[in-house]
Amino acid sequence: MSVTAPEGFVAAGLACGIKASGALDLALVATDDGRGVPGAGVFTTNLAAAAPVSVSRAHLAATGGRAAAVVISSGNANAATGERGTADAEGMCATVADGLGVGPAEVLILQTGLIGIPLPMGPIEAGIPRLVAARAPGRQAAERAATAIMTTDVVRKEVVVDGGGFTVGAMAKGAAMLAPHMATMLAVLTTDAACDPTALRAALAGAVGSTFNRLTIDGCTSTNDTVVVLASGRAGAPRHPDDLGRALGEACRSLAGSMAADAEGGSRVVHVVVTGAASDDDAHRAARKVADSNLVKCSLNGEDPYWGRVVSELGSAGVAFEIGRVAIAYGDTVVCRGGVAADHDDKAVRAHMALPAVEVRCDLGLGAGTAAVMTADLGHGYIDENRTTS
Amino acid sequence: MSVTAPEGFVAAGLACGIKASGALDLALVATDDGRGVPGAGVFTTNLAAAAPVSVSRAHLAATGGRAAAVVISSGNANAATGERGTADAEGMCATVADGLGVGPAEVLILQTGLIGIPLPMGPIEAGIPRLVAARAPGRQAAERAATAIMTTDVVRKEVVVDGGGFTVGAMAKGAAMLAPHMATMLAVLTTDAACDPTALRAALAGAVGSTFNRLTIDGCTSTNDTVVVLASGRAGAPRHPDDLGRALGEACRSLAGSMAADAEGGSRVVHVVVTGAASDDDAHRAARKVADSNLVKCSLNGEDPYWGRVVSELGSAGVAFEIGRVAIAYGDTVVCRGGVAADHDDKAVRAHMALPAVEVRCDLGLGAGTAAVMTADLGHGYIDENRTTS
Repeated sequence: MSVTAPEGFVAAGLACGIKASGALDLALVATDDGRGVPGAGVFTTNLAAAAPVSVSRAHLAATGGRAAAVVISSGNANAATGERGTADAEGMCATVADGLGVGPAEVLILQTGLIGIPLPMGPIEAGIPRLVAARAPGRQAAERAATAIMTTDVVRKEVVVDGGGFTVGAMAKGAAMLAPHMATMLAVLTTDAACDPTALRAALAGAVGSTFNRLTIDGCTSTNDTVVVLASGRAGAPRHPDDLGRALGEACRSLAGSMAADAEGGSRVVHVVVTGAASDDDAHRAARKVADSNLVKCSLNGEDPYWGRVVSELGSAGVAFEIGRVAIAYGDTVVCRGGVAADHDDKAVRAHMALPAVEVRCDLGLGAGTAAVMTADLGHGYIDENRTTS
Repeated sequence: MSVTAPEGFVAAGLACGIKASGALDLALVATDDGRGVPGAGVFTTNLAAAAPVSVSRAHLAATGGRAAAVVISSGNANAATGERGTADAEGMCATVADGLGVGPAEVLILQTGLIGIPLPMGPIEAGIPRLVAARAPGRQAAERAATAIMTTDVVRKEVVVDGGGFTVGAMAKGAAMLAPHMATMLAVLTTDAACDPTALRAALAGAVGSTFNRLTIDGCTSTNDTVVVLASGRAGAPRHPDDLGRALGEACRSLAGSMAADAEGGSRVVHVVVTGAASDDDAHRAARKVADSNLVKCSLNGEDPYWGRVVSELGSAGVAFEIGRVAIAYGDTVVCRGGVAADHDDKAVRAHMALPAVEVRCDLGLGAGTAAVMTADLGHGYIDENRTTS
């Protein structure tokens, strides 16, 4: 169901010819009455940000945080495409706006795919009227939209959250080029909760900061990362001011977990949890250093409980560190205590390492700082997926 | 020849039983007359530094920069081994010192291998007297020493540099857990140049900073990285004060190149060169971001000239960046200019990407900052090598 679950939204997805494979590559999420509603976005911090990122940012600024539709294309990132790329993204928004009878700035645009290649505007401009005509409520339309935003994703990523009196629906894509400091992927959320653009923006930023921004698959920050949310208001205001942020956070957490599970070449989700750090900031930095370590991720791929690599990453994470205070556990089994090997139940560790979701718990023994970062292991599939683009 | 090439040094290597395979695992480099000579070291910045790192640091401090011997063992890193590890490393130095008739603090120790496992001191203490007795000048002894320090290295790493009136010889090991901010591996250099400990330390630091510290294989900083140099003085003082630093730098550059060529799972050496940055610091940061990118390294493994990943890494490197000023070239062929695709000779690019040494040149178009970082591509072999330790 995803984006059409909340009251007031329609969706569509079709194949317009961006992908040579003929797979779905063009999606739309729009209000069902063609009216603008409060909208917000969180965008990549990459300074090589793609044209759709700068166009969507500009549109939200121009409307004061309102939007009537989101158009999404996959197969071509429209990044490193210069002024032509910006004109193409604006052109797509204008064509969608024409079809819906809204202003061009009320349309947001998200794109994902290969970098550095001009968009095939002929097929796209021919596809948009069909896309607009196909928009519909219900499960099937939402599924087609969620399918049309996939690139190397194996699994379609959708979620619906019951906010208690209102609903959040969301879809996302992402399986690599996933890393910190932004919303590492594309995601579109909808809700029927009523709220003003400022509150919506704050709720989205909070939700993204504790979910997508705590996910790293390969430490690579994409040029196109974008999360947007539209709020139709049909269900009225949430009972409590925090309810919307909580529901958006739940939706984002679910989608981030789907991305880790679908990581290119990964066979399991990995939760790196750091406690006892001198500060939360130290904990976050340490957790990310472990989560981004190719050596640690290879061990996890091999289900090898070699904690030596974990302690080495903690020691080089640039945080306060005293090896004699460090403890490391896989799940609940402590394998290193006081900075040296700890007697432990080897069978329990092996059983934990074989699970589809693994926990690497590190206690630095220095303070109250804590953080958790989600990642995946590193296997042959990642290399196979990324050796060639053609 | 390597470490025995300069006048005044002997070496040895044997199998004492640290490695279950029975491969050589214990090495010695010593002055041929049992006298202390100026010595210097550069050590890992990892705060989980291994016992041999702290012991060697303490010994050089105690002697004011003099040493008579270096003992090196492979197969066990003696890291995360607590006070017992320190006592074991001190014990090894004392046993070597006894055999040579020198003070224990005149012996430096380097160790490499698995982290978190206590040293098998029985076989090691039994092996040291045989090691001391086996010390000899000449090629064969140096080769045995250089072989005994290898772990996952496929190729033995040795070099001799003619300094012009004096000689530098060196051996090293390193194929993974190789990253910035220290001397990412083990290396032992010898020279017959005469110089005081302070000048030797400065010359070594300069040589390491521009060579080993510009090498990154996987962004993982080892607990044991150490480079040491001993100077016998037999060839007298270099003609020019800079000659020694230059010769040490040449030796380190050669060994760093050998490490990149022998990188686990890598099929080629990659030179990432950044020019036109706002500062040298920015250039270095940008070059390292590209060199540490799994996505870029997978492309290079597949010989795929997909520069989109390079521009994305540059944009997220945390440096001054304007995409419209960026140019990217593989070798001499520019593939991106003004931040967008440039018409180019595709055949020339493909031919360059197939070479055993590839150049990724990035010009940021902003200033005079330049830097070069050496790395390798990322292939299946890296994962196979690191999935399991047993």
